[in-house]
Amino acid sequence: MRKLCTAEIIAIGSELLTPLRSDTNSLFLTRKLNEVGIEVRRKTVVGDDVDDLIKAIRDGMTRTDLLITMGGLGPTEDDRTREAVSCATGKRFVRDDSWIAYMTERFARAGRPLTENNLRQADLLEGAELLRNQFGTAPGQWIPGDCTILMLPGPPREVYPMFEREVMRRIAGQAGGVAMHTRILRITGLTESYTDSLVGPIYKNLQNPSVTILASPGAIELHLRAIADGRHTADELIADVEEKFRQKLGDRIYGIDDETLEMVVGRKLQVMGCTIATAESCTGGLLTARLTDVPGSSAYLLRGYVCYTNRSKIHDVGVSPELIETFGAVSAPVAEAMASGVRSRSDADLGVSITGIAGPSGGTETKPVGLVYISVATMKRVQTTENRFLGERPIVRFQATQRALDMVRMSLSEESAS
Amino acid sequence: MRKLCTAEIIAIGSELLTPLRSDTNSLFLTRKLNEVGIEVRRKTVVGDDVDDLIKAIRDGMTRTDLLITMGGLGPTEDDRTREAVSCATGKRFVRDDSWIAYMTERFARAGRPLTENNLRQADLLEGAELLRNQFGTAPGQWIPGDCTILMLPGPPREVYPMFEREVMRRIAGQAGGVAMHTRILRITGLTESYTDSLVGPIYKNLQNPSVTILASPGAIELHLRAIADGRHTADELIADVEEKFRQKLGDRIYGIDDETLEMVVGRKLQVMGCTIATAESCTGGLLTARLTDVPGSSAYLLRGYVCYTNRSKIHDVGVSPELIETFGAVSAPVAEAMASGVRSRSDADLGVSITGIAGPSGGTETKPVGLVYISVATMKRVQTTENRFLGERPIVRFQATQRALDMVRMSLSEESAS
Repeated sequence: MRKLCTAEIIAIGSELLTPLRSDTNSLFLTRKLNEVGIEVRRKTVVGDDVDDLIKAIRDGMTRTDLLITMGGLGPTEDDRTREAVSCATGKRFVRDDSWIAYMTERFARAGRPLTENNLRQADLLEGAELLRNQFGTAPGQWIPGDCTILMLPGPPREVYPMFEREVMRRIAGQAGGVAMHTRILRITGLTESYTDSLVGPIYKNLQNPSVTILASPGAIELHLRAIADGRHTADELIADVEEKFRQKLGDRIYGIDDETLEMVVGRKLQVMGCTIATAESCTGGLLTARLTDVPGSSAYLLRGYVCYTNRSKIHDVGVSPELIETFGAVSAPVAEAMASGVRSRSDADLGVSITGIAGPSGGTETKPVGLVYISVATMKRVQTTENRFLGERPIVRFQATQRALDMVRMSLSEESAS
Repeated sequence: MRKLCTAEIIAIGSELLTPLRSDTNSLFLTRKLNEVGIEVRRKTVVGDDVDDLIKAIRDGMTRTDLLITMGGLGPTEDDRTREAVSCATGKRFVRDDSWIAYMTERFARAGRPLTENNLRQADLLEGAELLRNQFGTAPGQWIPGDCTILMLPGPPREVYPMFEREVMRRIAGQAGGVAMHTRILRITGLTESYTDSLVGPIYKNLQNPSVTILASPGAIELHLRAIADGRHTADELIADVEEKFRQKLGDRIYGIDDETLEMVVGRKLQVMGCTIATAESCTGGLLTARLTDVPGSSAYLLRGYVCYTNRSKIHDVGVSPELIETFGAVSAPVAEAMASGVRSRSDADLGVSITGIAGPSGGTETKPVGLVYISVATMKRVQTTENRFLGERPIVRFQATQRALDMVRMSLSEESAS
């Protein structure tokens, strides 16, 4: 068996060739493989046609160290991966008695009889090691060889635990001996081109770590990916470049890896022992929903108002009717009054408000779709921003909550600094 | 050029082989191809390595009528699709002067010089037809042949309009001559196995339309896919089975195709001229965010309260402190009081409330994580359900909003029937 440096993934199932489903398991597999330094060189999706599958397996075997099949291990006629691997490798089947015993016991508990079809799931290829499936009747198979073949079931709830428990220890020792590590720096409040103009000179000629910018409305990610002999060296390579990025971007980097803005804001609120209350118009609860998506958010989120009508703005958070009359519901003074009002009515440390035009209708020449006022009120002051977001209704709404969370974050940083 | 019956898609780009990005364009392409009866037989993802790419193109050409490449048409050194197609087909390049003129004019407007790299984007393969790109400098290419090759750029904002404007008319006439049509029936409030026990006997031996059940927490989709000589016949095949499903499932089918529950509820509210107000505890604004995600929702959504504290439940929606004291904040009586309270305080036709334990902490033996009470109050009565949802915090929260929307939907149906 040769060192595992490269892998290919074949996802199997006709449903993956419809407009409705895409293969997402392979993202998980890629992350785990990269962790031990194995690079994914190709991903293929084929249907339930056995000839297509045999061809794909044969092709893959000529190119890669580790060939992973995913799916097609069920008990039905559609499930032909075992058969295809047998054809492609010339290996025969050996029925695994221990797995039959396991299935028999499992079916007995559920009060169902074991069918002939299920027995086929215990058919291992010659030389294969059985990978236990805690959440289904299809075991995985690990077939070491010049090209090692790894057969996994399709459902994510079966694949993920099997990979962690049965596969990682098998690949870790035999992997290429390099470590690949990725660090994501998360940024908001800058455009992609401005971010690139700041950090581009740092990374343009950099090979290791390699740097990629991914941008979406309201969020920019910088991906740093290092390859080295060991995890420690990979970490050092990344730390060095990360430090340079932080010097340029400062507090525009709000988090790393999987952190969301609401997680970062929530942690700050909790550490500082501060409470918050919200008043939303055009975002209609989305800001509060994001804040409360974080476990433990009841420690700091006191209350939220969705003020979709003038009456609600007046009655619930104390905006004066004259203010709405004079400036309109979408205006800086109304945003300020909403933030101050919800703060004082809730006895919260911070009040945050959003009022704007999410579209597609409701825009005028002076107040177009995408115009959003956001205010954050603290004991000391009220800060308000005027924003013009581009995009469809959901995009405008998301960007507004992103900006609001970022304003809360900055406001908390000022508080803790002073 | 042979009739186009089968297609393969090759997505190109090293970023698609990382744990961070997956190819989603191909879902759009598959939908459009299926519409004219072309079946996608394989999808492949390769990186920027030109040899891998040449091999993938050569292999594909032996198998399929239409080979689609996506990505790698940019101006940089990483973009090697043109070169790979040239190697795989033996076709030479012909520089397209009209596209150079177009790029020159476009760059002049942006005040930037045209670089030598950009000129390469105007290199067409011999015999290729240029596909205009309205949103970028990379034109697509259509190369008719025994295996027709279609080269598309990678970014969705460029691919989608190019496919609609330039590709559809080319494939429609030459497609296999069959039509493929898919209808999705959306269901909530039933389990997958119970749904299958109701409709399984109808579709188990059915070939055309084929039927697939896709289930996720709180939502079940039945996909009906018919293939016929023309769209009309395909529609009839589907209508026949849909009718049988509707007889079994009745009002459990809340919508079709891309409809969401909030869209369906919103439409009913608007048609009936009814208004609604919300009071949420554990879902923290998510229900209101979903309701307001629908354009025009200000016509019926009056107000939402996120009552994350007892004080807010008492003060904002008028729950009596004794009720909370006696039954606890997570209880049927408190849910009822919240729904009635928010309804009467907002002068809304309907009040809807959610109170529960989303987890991961906060559960007890008698009130475990996932226990959620939901109430809908109308002028006539208050209906309450006790639910025990399984899953992580976001899953519990989503299911609670799904159930709440469904209760509103049923309540509106009763109103309109009476």
